[in-house]
Amino acid sequence: MRYLRTFLGYSSTFHILIYAIGRSPEPLAPSFGILSTAEAAEQRKQRMGRSRAPKLPCLRLGLFFFFFFVVFALRCDGGGVTSRYVRKLAATVDMPLDSDVFRVPPGYNAPQQVHITQGDHDGSAVIVSWVTTSERGSSIVLFGTSKDKLEYSAKGSYTRYKFYNYTSGFIHHCTLEDLKFDTKYYYAVGIGYTVRQFWFKTPPQPGPDVPYTFGLIGDLGQSYDSNSTLSHYQSNPNAEAVLFVGDLSYADNYPNHDNVRWDTWGRFVERSVAYQPWIWTAGNHEIDFAPEIGETKPFKPYRHRYHVPYKASGSTSPFWYSIKRASAYIIVLASYSAYGKYTPQYKWLEAELPKVNRSETPWLIVLMHAPWYNSYNYHYMEGETMRVMYEPWFVQYKVDVVFAGHVHAYERSHRISNIAYNIVNGKCTPVPDLSAPVYVTIGDGGNLEGLATNMTEPQPSYSAFREASFGHAIFEIKNKTHAYYTWHRNHDGNAVAADSMWFTNRYWHTTDDTYVA
Amino acid sequence: MRYLRTFLGYSSTFHILIYAIGRSPEPLAPSFGILSTAEAAEQRKQRMGRSRAPKLPCLRLGLFFFFFFVVFALRCDGGGVTSRYVRKLAATVDMPLDSDVFRVPPGYNAPQQVHITQGDHDGSAVIVSWVTTSERGSSIVLFGTSKDKLEYSAKGSYTRYKFYNYTSGFIHHCTLEDLKFDTKYYYAVGIGYTVRQFWFKTPPQPGPDVPYTFGLIGDLGQSYDSNSTLSHYQSNPNAEAVLFVGDLSYADNYPNHDNVRWDTWGRFVERSVAYQPWIWTAGNHEIDFAPEIGETKPFKPYRHRYHVPYKASGSTSPFWYSIKRASAYIIVLASYSAYGKYTPQYKWLEAELPKVNRSETPWLIVLMHAPWYNSYNYHYMEGETMRVMYEPWFVQYKVDVVFAGHVHAYERSHRISNIAYNIVNGKCTPVPDLSAPVYVTIGDGGNLEGLATNMTEPQPSYSAFREASFGHAIFEIKNKTHAYYTWHRNHDGNAVAADSMWFTNRYWHTTDDTYVA
Repeated sequence: MRYLRTFLGYSSTFHILIYAIGRSPEPLAPSFGILSTAEAAEQRKQRMGRSRAPKLPCLRLGLFFFFFFVVFALRCDGGGVTSRYVRKLAATVDMPLDSDVFRVPPGYNAPQQVHITQGDHDGSAVIVSWVTTSERGSSIVLFGTSKDKLEYSAKGSYTRYKFYNYTSGFIHHCTLEDLKFDTKYYYAVGIGYTVRQFWFKTPPQPGPDVPYTFGLIGDLGQSYDSNSTLSHYQSNPNAEAVLFVGDLSYADNYPNHDNVRWDTWGRFVERSVAYQPWIWTAGNHEIDFAPEIGETKPFKPYRHRYHVPYKASGSTSPFWYSIKRASAYIIVLASYSAYGKYTPQYKWLEAELPKVNRSETPWLIVLMHAPWYNSYNYHYMEGETMRVMYEPWFVQYKVDVVFAGHVHAYERSHRISNIAYNIVNGKCTPVPDLSAPVYVTIGDGGNLEGLATNMTEPQPSYSAFREASFGHAIFEIKNKTHAYYTWHRNHDGNAVAADSMWFTNRYWHTTDDTYVA
Repeated sequence: MRYLRTFLGYSSTFHILIYAIGRSPEPLAPSFGILSTAEAAEQRKQRMGRSRAPKLPCLRLGLFFFFFFVVFALRCDGGGVTSRYVRKLAATVDMPLDSDVFRVPPGYNAPQQVHITQGDHDGSAVIVSWVTTSERGSSIVLFGTSKDKLEYSAKGSYTRYKFYNYTSGFIHHCTLEDLKFDTKYYYAVGIGYTVRQFWFKTPPQPGPDVPYTFGLIGDLGQSYDSNSTLSHYQSNPNAEAVLFVGDLSYADNYPNHDNVRWDTWGRFVERSVAYQPWIWTAGNHEIDFAPEIGETKPFKPYRHRYHVPYKASGSTSPFWYSIKRASAYIIVLASYSAYGKYTPQYKWLEAELPKVNRSETPWLIVLMHAPWYNSYNYHYMEGETMRVMYEPWFVQYKVDVVFAGHVHAYERSHRISNIAYNIVNGKCTPVPDLSAPVYVTIGDGGNLEGLATNMTEPQPSYSAFREASFGHAIFEIKNKTHAYYTWHRNHDGNAVAADSMWFTNRYWHTTDDTYVA
């Protein structure tokens, strides 16, 4: 098995090298993916200026051997990298209530906390949500493809909730349906009083070779670091939608889970989420379970504020569901709902995975909050209880990548699985597995709880790269076989990738891509 | 560790032998527990006539060496026994709707499906439930300590539910409070129309040395074999309450989960549960999740029909809770609710375990549906997802015994734990652990799905005894250090124990009792 893996690993290395060298200049970029550390990024930037479009055969040959040497060196050290980047430690503090990012929009009963998410299974609908506070106002959304002529309208509804001594505003949700794919729409909310206008772009129709770029953010919160993460993410001009892996506002860290902090968070992220959909995953900070103040129904604020299109995928709960978006099939799982055999989530996932048509959506992505593979001394092994249930399916159905949050740091795994255990055989060590997903922990959004800096030592063999810095990631699908993934720490400029990897698709092109990263 | 265990094992063996031999005749009975197989039971019966009250020292010495030989022989073979009892296999078939055990009680609007369970945390309250079908009728219960003078009354309430094309009767629940301990009460329901009268006995006040006898039944259903199990259980004159480990009616095996089979089950078990409390655990057959017919709210029938005193133990859900009863503290867990870290069940259990006062209730018993240790090829490893979450707590807090169902057969484990695993150390094999509970699978109530007969081979070392027969068990607490446990297969007379074990309490008397069984 190990020999096979090694062989495949080198094969894939050669494949990408040949792809890179044989087709320069355009496909040269992929080959940069084989240098992943901060130092490599530095080298990469230096080379960027001079090595584009090599024309001579001898240059190609030189480049080939240089890459071979680097890959060989990386493989010999076992592949696991703990970043040597040293972050200046500073307290992570929430922004005060009077911060400009929390400002209430001007005008009587102006809609605030505007946010959108995908509204159906294939991306031709959008759920628009917003809050009014002075009075109910209208739940209508006007929309159209011309900024000056919003020719369509849709009528939503509103909900409210009480949480201890807090009463929410009027929370409106309205689904815009039958949208054209790959089209820019303008929309307006607050009809009747203060009208605010925004826009979004629908994704291309699902298809195997449709390029699409996702952002990855987790555990965001509303600290100064959260603001830095969001700004950093927004500086990427290509990101089209956010896969959010849970833990939104951290309101529950305040006395009585002060739900005012749910409102401030909604206003804080509006500058992104009013313009591009964020795909929601429920984290532990969404549970808001507080029996000591009589709040015993889990997820009450989250469930009222953040609607998702769960019924479109046959789910019976907003905490697990799926969407198709461009060339990706995204499955959202619930770390804090029941997942044992026979439970609704289990039955749904069991029926869902065989439905994924990799010829239509080659990229199978799973989002969850609590990571299965994590080598920090925070939340260590918390994901085991769900892993032992579902990991065999992830391997069987060749999930490409699993994004999780929860741990306030960054980590990327090799392709490994741990599914041979049968209680009596002692086989319980993660092993390389080309059918397994890469596991990425991206819980480094920057919330007030601060960074997870304490790592298990030595770095376990399943961990490919880890660093305790705040940041976000980008998953850029190129076609049905390749996707380019980068992680961006807040302390660098946007162009810098502190970690990166070329993913090859598990269904269409099963190379040993993590050792090339 | 192993040496320690062996030493303790022999110590406990000697302890019990000395106890048995030195104090004959009365305490001789306990010593019979060291012979556990069917053959041993046979030997025991033969000896019963002739060996009571041995008076001579030489007889005692002979007995001592005989026991030593048997115990030594049992230990040398590894301890795991797969029973050689061969059951005549026959189809397990539900009793038809017109069976006498399902008969509707005569009289207009007569209360049916009468059942009781503990109504508070310490046993001084009882929840009485029943169903009326012609009209609502009264939710009042009259009760008192004299059969002819029901001097007290309590007023309950009723509920109804619809399930697809079924509408339930009026389901009444009424809690009788402030009852005296250790007292026989008579009660009447159906006030106003047809009145039916029953009785129950309250448990003694919780205390360390209060003897009490529990019955154990799981996965009962309503087949001819279920009827045999129930009758067999009822023939034990000492059993005072049933710990029911989930899977009640199996109505969900009928088209559209025909809820009429919930009603027949309620009438079937009334002959026991109207007179002694059954402590309820939710199994997978209580989920009744049927999105194909629009029924998406899990546990709807069960939740309406079977009330439990969950609020009395600070729980926020009827699926996990605790009660004290005599000298036992009983914790009921939910295999099919969320149990991950941060979830309501997790937080409740985390706070609950330290509250158990072993000086008041020495015996800590946990009920759940899906077993953690099971060596049948049915539902194998399904309990892993919960085990990895909670097993360290069970060892830390020295749970005496865990009763589960789900697998339609019988099994008893040695005291073992599997809590050393840390992903990278390879330590994932169950090992002997004197702080660990004994795990008993008692899902052999006799439901229509039939017996689980296919076992994993060889029998794993954690399995002490297993046999694929229908039956029930009895857990007879003698005092704060000793409890006598027996398993009774349906095909034997009630006096026969096909498996037995003397439990020594984990908190007060930590001997290696499973190897003495």
